[in-house]
Amino acid sequence: MNSCDILVLNGTLLTMDSRGTQFKNGAVAIEGEKIVALGPADDFSSWNASRIIDARRGIIMPGLVNAHTHAAMTCFRGLADDLPLMTWLNDYIFPAEAKLDYEKVYCGALLACAEMIISGTTCFCDMYLFEDAVASAAKHAGMRAVVGEVLYDFPSPNYGPIESGFAYTEMLIEKWKNDSLITIAVEPHSPYLCSPDLLKTAFSLAEKNNIPLVIHVSETESEVQKSIEKHGLTPIGLLADLDVLSPNLLACHCVALTDEDISLLQRFDVKVSHNPESNMKLASGIAPIPKLLKEGVCVGLGTDGCASNNNLDIFLEMDTAAKLHKVNTFDPTVMDANTVLKMCTIDGARSLGLNDITGSLEPGKRADVIIIDTHKPHLTPMYNPISHLVYAVKGSDVTTSIINGKIVMEDGRLLTLSIEKIIEDIKIIADEIKGAKLEF
Amino acid sequence: MNSCDILVLNGTLLTMDSRGTQFKNGAVAIEGEKIVALGPADDFSSWNASRIIDARRGIIMPGLVNAHTHAAMTCFRGLADDLPLMTWLNDYIFPAEAKLDYEKVYCGALLACAEMIISGTTCFCDMYLFEDAVASAAKHAGMRAVVGEVLYDFPSPNYGPIESGFAYTEMLIEKWKNDSLITIAVEPHSPYLCSPDLLKTAFSLAEKNNIPLVIHVSETESEVQKSIEKHGLTPIGLLADLDVLSPNLLACHCVALTDEDISLLQRFDVKVSHNPESNMKLASGIAPIPKLLKEGVCVGLGTDGCASNNNLDIFLEMDTAAKLHKVNTFDPTVMDANTVLKMCTIDGARSLGLNDITGSLEPGKRADVIIIDTHKPHLTPMYNPISHLVYAVKGSDVTTSIINGKIVMEDGRLLTLSIEKIIEDIKIIADEIKGAKLEF
Repeated sequence: MNSCDILVLNGTLLTMDSRGTQFKNGAVAIEGEKIVALGPADDFSSWNASRIIDARRGIIMPGLVNAHTHAAMTCFRGLADDLPLMTWLNDYIFPAEAKLDYEKVYCGALLACAEMIISGTTCFCDMYLFEDAVASAAKHAGMRAVVGEVLYDFPSPNYGPIESGFAYTEMLIEKWKNDSLITIAVEPHSPYLCSPDLLKTAFSLAEKNNIPLVIHVSETESEVQKSIEKHGLTPIGLLADLDVLSPNLLACHCVALTDEDISLLQRFDVKVSHNPESNMKLASGIAPIPKLLKEGVCVGLGTDGCASNNNLDIFLEMDTAAKLHKVNTFDPTVMDANTVLKMCTIDGARSLGLNDITGSLEPGKRADVIIIDTHKPHLTPMYNPISHLVYAVKGSDVTTSIINGKIVMEDGRLLTLSIEKIIEDIKIIADEIKGAKLEF
Repeated sequence: MNSCDILVLNGTLLTMDSRGTQFKNGAVAIEGEKIVALGPADDFSSWNASRIIDARRGIIMPGLVNAHTHAAMTCFRGLADDLPLMTWLNDYIFPAEAKLDYEKVYCGALLACAEMIISGTTCFCDMYLFEDAVASAAKHAGMRAVVGEVLYDFPSPNYGPIESGFAYTEMLIEKWKNDSLITIAVEPHSPYLCSPDLLKTAFSLAEKNNIPLVIHVSETESEVQKSIEKHGLTPIGLLADLDVLSPNLLACHCVALTDEDISLLQRFDVKVSHNPESNMKLASGIAPIPKLLKEGVCVGLGTDGCASNNNLDIFLEMDTAAKLHKVNTFDPTVMDANTVLKMCTIDGARSLGLNDITGSLEPGKRADVIIIDTHKPHLTPMYNPISHLVYAVKGSDVTTSIINGKIVMEDGRLLTLSIEKIIEDIKIIADEIKGAKLEF
């Protein structure tokens, strides 16, 4: 008789594998950290499982991937909105960030993990300060994460002088190298805040360790214009000139691209993170995602930080992504539901170099599985589960989450974190930030 | 000692009155259908109430207004997406609609009411077939609604020959004239499906009864171009030419407007319903809402029908509206959170001619009140409740809803409807629609 640790069954199973395999009534068998088998539930009737999880005719699917976050910015959620970009940054965000320390980043990241797990995300890619705190928070929450300390041409409140950024990143790589959940990345902020030397060193470090290189790039037209003035090249053109384009590079935002930029991204198999809600809220522009997809560029979906969104719900981001490009191109057929769903499952995982591990449900992969409760008015009737996932489901419809074979949420209850404690801690941090507001 | 039927207290109270009055810890006293008093909770410590509802430090605010729906289209949620407009309409929606009858519209509208109440909407404006069924469903659910039978230049599956549309509308007016929840409107579909004669008769009927006149207008650039070819006038220009512009007119969509159209809307105090998610999904275009607001035009927010959205959650619609216009104008200061919140509270009510009755919490107004649970990770911390309502709250955060002084949802439990029964009924309808798909 076959046996496993956890058997999830009695739901529409979307594997998101390369053939788009679905089972109307499916089951997933998990042993240790991994998926060992899946298929029609009937095939598992004789299996012996330590834990059986009933999906109650909902949807069983891969956990979602958030390809771009600044998790600890949950601390600044709703602190300042609807402002000109420079006022928002200089008068609110930068002064608030100057008050951050390891402990605050840890608390903010725990809050982000709680919010992400509750809303169906099982893996995220983070760039911020004090990233050892973010890795520790993700580990504590039981989430999969790619984390990297932000590197730039000025001293950091975390690691001090510019030149210590790489030592800190190497420390992270060493500390977390055998972890089953955490991957360290090298994360220079952007071509406009990093010297060519810094960018080249960052690239070498990522290549040497075969880990992702993550960067903000071409977020606004104004950034592109300034790059052309300074270097005679677009930001993507500059990265090409520095020989740092590669399949391990995750280029975040990519709002303002030339056709030549798109060719470069395609030629070097660079991955792109698309963050439509943040780009909309900051009035940055609309990334040419349908064009990138047409050229075969791999695109993941991200929320960006909470200060410019203001939530981390990838289901809502999918809905926005699907609709925004339709109206922007006057074509209701672009960014169909399946394409968008791939952006935060298998393609999201690919954008982080984790597609062998997560992003789809397949035997041998790590068990990152979520269950959606579809027995609700706003998900009735259900003609097509993929349509619902993109256009009707909200993060609040997720009931259960398994990450790396471990149940982290069941029937809406977080098992790895205390929401009460997190909310209490964050209120204290928020009071401090509010209290300091007069200095802004 | 003062007394009342229901006392809602212990939450941040947003009145949405003309001064934007808020109370950090407020209370609302309800007697019968109406609000009799409100203010700081301390002022009510000696009040005697039959029912005390504790908002548990959440937000107490006016119920939301959905200014444009086709409620029964919940039956077609997710039936067809990502298609060219004419394929979607001709191959899916029209054939499915041909199968509708009173009973199906009633069931679909009940489902819509359940979804709307659960997500914080207390009042909606509907246009569809068999609207007596929609009025009856809203009444059953305990929702406030403006409903009107769609009128156009061809026979209706409901009232039969074209000329019977007005008789049916007059029947509705007579039947529901003294109802405390239902307002009947006259609802010609659009200038392109209605003859000038029909439009003028509709206008006269609405004026005679002093009720709203609701119409789709200028939804796409193509509609405008065809109107210019046929009449030498834009659709708004045509309505002006027919003398049917008035403060009682609710013009839905208004995506493709000329500056002259905007002046006309402003001059005649025409109300506009903005439906950004539907306009995005159908790739219709982006309505010039910041321009309309600058000219002082009153704009309400609507979801449109479920087939083009695919949900009825006004909180998500607010988030989209706030962000879409920022990126469309490259200005992060337009459509600030307070402006958007007004569009689905007091301005939404004004767009339906119901601003003396609902849309804000003020003594003498009907008690349409909702409570938001803010004790959740994605609403932590809270620097500014209005920012959260627009950028972070989802419909699933609403716990309690009172409409016209009656509690219709408490702690997430619907009191007026059986969700189980509705879901069961809709599944049967959906099977019939699916079964008929081969004929499409």
